[in-house]
Amino acid sequence: MNTLMSDIKITRTKTTKIHDVDFDNLNFGRTFSDHMLVCDYKDGKWQSPEIVPYQPIVLDPSAKIFHYGQSVFEGMKAYKDANDSVWLFRPLENFKRLNISSKRLAIPELPEDIFMEGLKALLKVDSNWIPKKEGSSLYIRPFIFASGNGFHASPADQYKFVIALAPSGAYFSGKVKVLIEETYSRSANGGVGFAKAGGNYAGQFYPTQLAVEKGYQQVIWTDDTNHEYIEEAGAMNIFIRINDTLITGPTSDRILDGITRKSIIDIAKREGIPVEVRKITVSEVVNAAKDGSLKEMFGAGTAAVVSPISGFGYKGIDYDLPELKDTYATFIKKYITDIQTNKSDDPFGWRVKM
Amino acid sequence: MNTLMSDIKITRTKTTKIHDVDFDNLNFGRTFSDHMLVCDYKDGKWQSPEIVPYQPIVLDPSAKIFHYGQSVFEGMKAYKDANDSVWLFRPLENFKRLNISSKRLAIPELPEDIFMEGLKALLKVDSNWIPKKEGSSLYIRPFIFASGNGFHASPADQYKFVIALAPSGAYFSGKVKVLIEETYSRSANGGVGFAKAGGNYAGQFYPTQLAVEKGYQQVIWTDDTNHEYIEEAGAMNIFIRINDTLITGPTSDRILDGITRKSIIDIAKREGIPVEVRKITVSEVVNAAKDGSLKEMFGAGTAAVVSPISGFGYKGIDYDLPELKDTYATFIKKYITDIQTNKSDDPFGWRVKM
Repeated sequence: MNTLMSDIKITRTKTTKIHDVDFDNLNFGRTFSDHMLVCDYKDGKWQSPEIVPYQPIVLDPSAKIFHYGQSVFEGMKAYKDANDSVWLFRPLENFKRLNISSKRLAIPELPEDIFMEGLKALLKVDSNWIPKKEGSSLYIRPFIFASGNGFHASPADQYKFVIALAPSGAYFSGKVKVLIEETYSRSANGGVGFAKAGGNYAGQFYPTQLAVEKGYQQVIWTDDTNHEYIEEAGAMNIFIRINDTLITGPTSDRILDGITRKSIIDIAKREGIPVEVRKITVSEVVNAAKDGSLKEMFGAGTAAVVSPISGFGYKGIDYDLPELKDTYATFIKKYITDIQTNKSDDPFGWRVKM
Repeated sequence: MNTLMSDIKITRTKTTKIHDVDFDNLNFGRTFSDHMLVCDYKDGKWQSPEIVPYQPIVLDPSAKIFHYGQSVFEGMKAYKDANDSVWLFRPLENFKRLNISSKRLAIPELPEDIFMEGLKALLKVDSNWIPKKEGSSLYIRPFIFASGNGFHASPADQYKFVIALAPSGAYFSGKVKVLIEETYSRSANGGVGFAKAGGNYAGQFYPTQLAVEKGYQQVIWTDDTNHEYIEEAGAMNIFIRINDTLITGPTSDRILDGITRKSIIDIAKREGIPVEVRKITVSEVVNAAKDGSLKEMFGAGTAAVVSPISGFGYKGIDYDLPELKDTYATFIKKYITDIQTNKSDDPFGWRVKM
């Protein structure tokens, strides 16, 4: 298959919703643009993608998405610079990861041109929906789900790939207080934790609700064997600064290979920040909090960008993090955001013009 | 809430599909009856259930089912006896388990009357769809999914409960050959393995495909720490007979509390079959196969009923099970099916007349 932008059938909406949107006060992921890309997998192959007005999806009650959780997604952002040029950040990494997720969920892999050319065409049609205000962006949600029918517990024979767009503000407001989990787990060895699979998120909601009731916003997941190692926070990977060293856990079959995460590792290396990718025990973090060597913790992800953590709870005790003046989080957040929004050089070649 | 059958609004289809169905040659879960029950959760509570013609479900592309896997389901069967009476098997157990699953997935629990009275009313409307042929039944699929919208990774504010009906034949045709898994895992300690959650099934499809390519039909899952203990088979719990003792693993947060499984334990106890509920190591099963004390293995579940296993693969070696004349599997399958279809006494009080 070789899809060119000129091949993609475009059906434009007759009535734009854009005038109803307050671009100065955007929430996260609740306002949707005028169009979406759709592409069906049937008869053993991905069909031609189309751009259509944003509209409901119609499914048989036996569609396997309702029963067997076959779904994967990605999260990306488009930015508009002062000259109205549109930029993406490492989009091929999202494409590759989508297929890594799909493979583990027995979903047929998507050709690169459908993803990249489809995205490009959709962003062109809805370019007015990309916010210019600092801290806002057009959140891009590519997703694939099982649309084929039947109650037999086996992979579907039909799938739907959709890209939807949501002009969005910040994911978190303010600093985040986290709970290090001692009971529940996010993923298994040999499981699907490395995939951006729907089921990974549903399983986190209840333990997160319990944490929220105790005054935390997010859970930091630990390994399911002994709850001994720090893993990730579900909506973001975790970085820990002990003295001047930035540490993050290695990716595994239980941890998402975050694009923001790996970009931060590269930025740290380039900027002379000592960075270690290694397993971190909970007790190392607790001891560092006790002796004052724990300087910072922050989450990293496309939606969350770089989210500073104000403190953590563990075994009923709360540990506050110090209020530093110059933090790695602030430095790195500005560094990566400036690259993303074309306000700085891009020494890594991560920025892609649409 | 107190839903009575007389309260349930019923909209009947104008054109039945029943004459298109070959009830002598039913597949599993691919033919659907004329009606379905639907009930929405919104504004903080479950609304009134309705029976409507079987029809597509319409959802916003941002509905959380597509993104975050919030879905749970049950599997039940209705049987029609020689006098056209309709019977269910331990339906309250399905109702209770649905809510156990929902709680773990942060889905609001469903009132008992919506489930039980809704099911009763639906079966009355579609009673002609219940097959009478031996080995066939009306497969009942109650399910709940997140219909509320938004890309924020948090529980939905709206859900949909549906009961759909599928007149069905056998789930497996013939004996099943299984692979004892050494690499992939179904569930984590502290995870959602005990819940009938969509995501648990999607994660099994790829490893099962790999097993199918090697000539097996199903995977027997083992613990994710060391792949040392036999857990379950995804679509069914597992029973192992060593000499004259029937053994099955204990339920846990990784293993589904199967209704067929616990019924079989009770039947074995009543009928003087030595039965043990305890952890079983893979090496115990392999050694029993080698020394000839392994007599039977079978799967147990609502869809699979009692499915004899012909042999298993482990570390590249295939172990065949003996061809016995009088098997526990045959005895128990007849015993439980006779109770379900009102062909025998029901000493346990499991059968419920609709």
